[in-house]
Amino acid sequence: MKPSIIRLRALEKQLYAYLYAMTVIDFDAETVAPEGSADGRAEATEVLSRASFDLLVNDGTAALLKEAAADAETEQERAEVRNLQRQYDEIARIPADEYAAFTKLCSQSVPAWTKAKRTNDFSLFAPYLEKIIAARRAQARYFAPDRDPYEVLLDRYEKGLTIAQCDEFFATLRETIVPLLADIQTRGKAVRTDFLDQEWPIDAQRRVSKKIMELWGLDPAHCYLAESEHPFTTEFWRGDVRITTHYMPRDIFSNLYSVAHEGGHALYELNINPDYDYTVVTHGATMGIHESQSRLFENLVGRSRAFVHYLYPTLKELFPAQLADVSAEEIWRAVNRAEPGLIRTEADELTYSLHIMVRYELEKALMQGTLAVADLPAAWNAKYKEYLGVDVPDDAHGCLQDIHWSMGDIGYFPSYALGSAYGAQALDDLRKTNDFDAQWANGDMEPLKAALKERVWQWGSMKEPAWLVESLCGGKFDPHHFTDYLKKKYTELYEL
Amino acid sequence: MKPSIIRLRALEKQLYAYLYAMTVIDFDAETVAPEGSADGRAEATEVLSRASFDLLVNDGTAALLKEAAADAETEQERAEVRNLQRQYDEIARIPADEYAAFTKLCSQSVPAWTKAKRTNDFSLFAPYLEKIIAARRAQARYFAPDRDPYEVLLDRYEKGLTIAQCDEFFATLRETIVPLLADIQTRGKAVRTDFLDQEWPIDAQRRVSKKIMELWGLDPAHCYLAESEHPFTTEFWRGDVRITTHYMPRDIFSNLYSVAHEGGHALYELNINPDYDYTVVTHGATMGIHESQSRLFENLVGRSRAFVHYLYPTLKELFPAQLADVSAEEIWRAVNRAEPGLIRTEADELTYSLHIMVRYELEKALMQGTLAVADLPAAWNAKYKEYLGVDVPDDAHGCLQDIHWSMGDIGYFPSYALGSAYGAQALDDLRKTNDFDAQWANGDMEPLKAALKERVWQWGSMKEPAWLVESLCGGKFDPHHFTDYLKKKYTELYEL
Repeated sequence: MKPSIIRLRALEKQLYAYLYAMTVIDFDAETVAPEGSADGRAEATEVLSRASFDLLVNDGTAALLKEAAADAETEQERAEVRNLQRQYDEIARIPADEYAAFTKLCSQSVPAWTKAKRTNDFSLFAPYLEKIIAARRAQARYFAPDRDPYEVLLDRYEKGLTIAQCDEFFATLRETIVPLLADIQTRGKAVRTDFLDQEWPIDAQRRVSKKIMELWGLDPAHCYLAESEHPFTTEFWRGDVRITTHYMPRDIFSNLYSVAHEGGHALYELNINPDYDYTVVTHGATMGIHESQSRLFENLVGRSRAFVHYLYPTLKELFPAQLADVSAEEIWRAVNRAEPGLIRTEADELTYSLHIMVRYELEKALMQGTLAVADLPAAWNAKYKEYLGVDVPDDAHGCLQDIHWSMGDIGYFPSYALGSAYGAQALDDLRKTNDFDAQWANGDMEPLKAALKERVWQWGSMKEPAWLVESLCGGKFDPHHFTDYLKKKYTELYEL
Repeated sequence: MKPSIIRLRALEKQLYAYLYAMTVIDFDAETVAPEGSADGRAEATEVLSRASFDLLVNDGTAALLKEAAADAETEQERAEVRNLQRQYDEIARIPADEYAAFTKLCSQSVPAWTKAKRTNDFSLFAPYLEKIIAARRAQARYFAPDRDPYEVLLDRYEKGLTIAQCDEFFATLRETIVPLLADIQTRGKAVRTDFLDQEWPIDAQRRVSKKIMELWGLDPAHCYLAESEHPFTTEFWRGDVRITTHYMPRDIFSNLYSVAHEGGHALYELNINPDYDYTVVTHGATMGIHESQSRLFENLVGRSRAFVHYLYPTLKELFPAQLADVSAEEIWRAVNRAEPGLIRTEADELTYSLHIMVRYELEKALMQGTLAVADLPAAWNAKYKEYLGVDVPDDAHGCLQDIHWSMGDIGYFPSYALGSAYGAQALDDLRKTNDFDAQWANGDMEPLKAALKERVWQWGSMKEPAWLVESLCGGKFDPHHFTDYLKKKYTELYEL
């Protein structure tokens, strides 16, 4: 290994340590930190993030990256240089004062959004959103002055993703899902839901979590399950991944599918090649690829007929009174029912992508200047009516529901929908050589896990996202696998 | 504020941030971190502690401290300079290579001790202990070449503490406790203990924890209760203190008195003057002063007759079957029973100090060269026979039981005993103007808390330990308050 690579590795390990500290601090904040703990945490994280920034962005790092780029000999070394250079450019190409101003803007924008949502007053957030869009447009120009600024942002979250690909993707979804949903609503067979709203004791729900973790093969020596307001996954390092769930006394499936979903994220992180430990290629690749794994385990596996039938005896044993007259088939239908609603995070497998589509179209229009911030609420409400058939009662349940834009995250939403589509195509390809339904009907996840580890997990972010997507899908990405899956599943479920 | 003080404050806040990160990481490790998480944590903490070390120890800091010492105008500014200078000297007076070698020695010594304890083989630990003693002797010489090296170490943990004071203190304890214990064993009235070993449901035990936290006035917005193998208190900052407990299904009092004890530590940290936030004077002073507060709330309050009688109806309500035929008086006697044993951490209020005395006498002799490491086990066993009347069956239950020496902590043990004595004297003084028994019999802790806040808590470590001890005690320290308290309490309890 050349001396520059040795120095690069040392820098990567330092950056790892700061990231580790910030991650533990965040995890603590989201799980058990007392309510009045925020001030001291803010003081500490400001110092630590500044120290981490200073480690990365300086002339020494710039020179080291240049030297290491010339010296890199292995694929891993080249990937480390490439990914660290991207992190560097992300910050360093923006003039320092603009970067600081943007950080400050976001820190002011989040509380403004919180207040706007709480008081249902979009005008409190609008001026911040205008500034955020202007700043993001300016930043995009530093990266690629001649390119559509929204596409520059898409590329930031999913390396290589274009507006054309997104447009085609969402058009395909719209053509399938909108009429399918209409069909379900006009002539679908009713799904039994009366048994859902009961008391489901938390102790028994905890045993459901344990069962799912066992089935997914999440080793408690390396994967801890905590509780938080909103479920999430966070990786301290490859050997220590934390997932969280939230128990609701009157909803057994919220916890079950949270653990199934976060467990998918965790499997990815836990199965990355140990050679990448403490380097910048050690974590899962893009958010879209990460979501492909979590949604695959949550929906394609967890909500499959085979798996629900497999889980049925366990559920009956844990909840004998609650499920006394409920069949496995009725559970399968209930956890898959399609119900257009207002809130993205509560959406079912079928309508979820429509929520994302609304956000994609609106943020693209905002960035391209064809929609003014002042007109956002009306545009939002019109699209919800058109795609989901629902009337938005107020902005708190409409365009103010998500935190993303207030944090400066524009171009991030499409990843949520792409993940589901990647997963569907991967399964179609893997089914050619695997009888998953028979395996899942026995609770056997090993063949699926082995295939995903080979295609995606092991690589961390050493491979480019486009390569990983193709490896996962077993070929060029084609959203029709996802729409065909939805059509087949929902036609059967609603006996259309 | 002079410019040098402003720069000093900035440095203090940076050091605070690193300490915050390390504290959160430790807390996570002790409470919920999965078993297989250690490697990545070690890598991260090595980087962070090195970064924190480099922030403190450099020529710039040395110059800044000099400048700030001349510029300090207020008492707080002077205290910050003084305490930071001490932290600096602690490290910087030792040659860098010796400091690094000692850090490495301790990191090897702890696993060696663990293995020695597990396999009951003192010879595995002896060579490390020899090196640790030699290194500590050498270090003491850098601080004060003409002073007894053991006294230099005592001073390190309890600023101003001398061997003469310690000798006198332990002599007073020995003269009282050894014959008192013999008296109890020969002619004390038997204490009823048959009801202790029962099933005490954990859910009800959790409500006991909650009750104690409420009575102590520990606001859950600033004080979180977690679970860990061994109970401890850790402060993230003045507004965020964590305490832990451990629930044992067949022991209700272990948890109760753990929360009472750790709650005392927490009250101290939570009541420090907010003006000291993020500076080096923001935490409680020495370990002895800290223990005075925790043992005060655990023993002097929590094991008092008045308080046990106050708590009795709550315990009866939570454990009606377990306590059906047990009186408040029987509980009071049971939680105060004196039983000489082998293990320090399980000792009662009376015999605890004897365990500390053994360690004090032995570590002093080791440091002064009058006891060889090879002779430690025999010396240990002889003292346990003499003071506690017990036969030590093996070194695992004898001189290998505590981790302290393996971590390089020599001179630390006396603080454990001093704390109890400080607290007893403080209460004697405060009782002149407070009827605590009447207050505690009503569950009223406010007058006690107000007095302790005024005398000690508010000051953090801005005042010198000697000043704080005198403020707490209401005069010069005199261990007879503690021995008189023990004599009176145990004479009454055992009807001697």
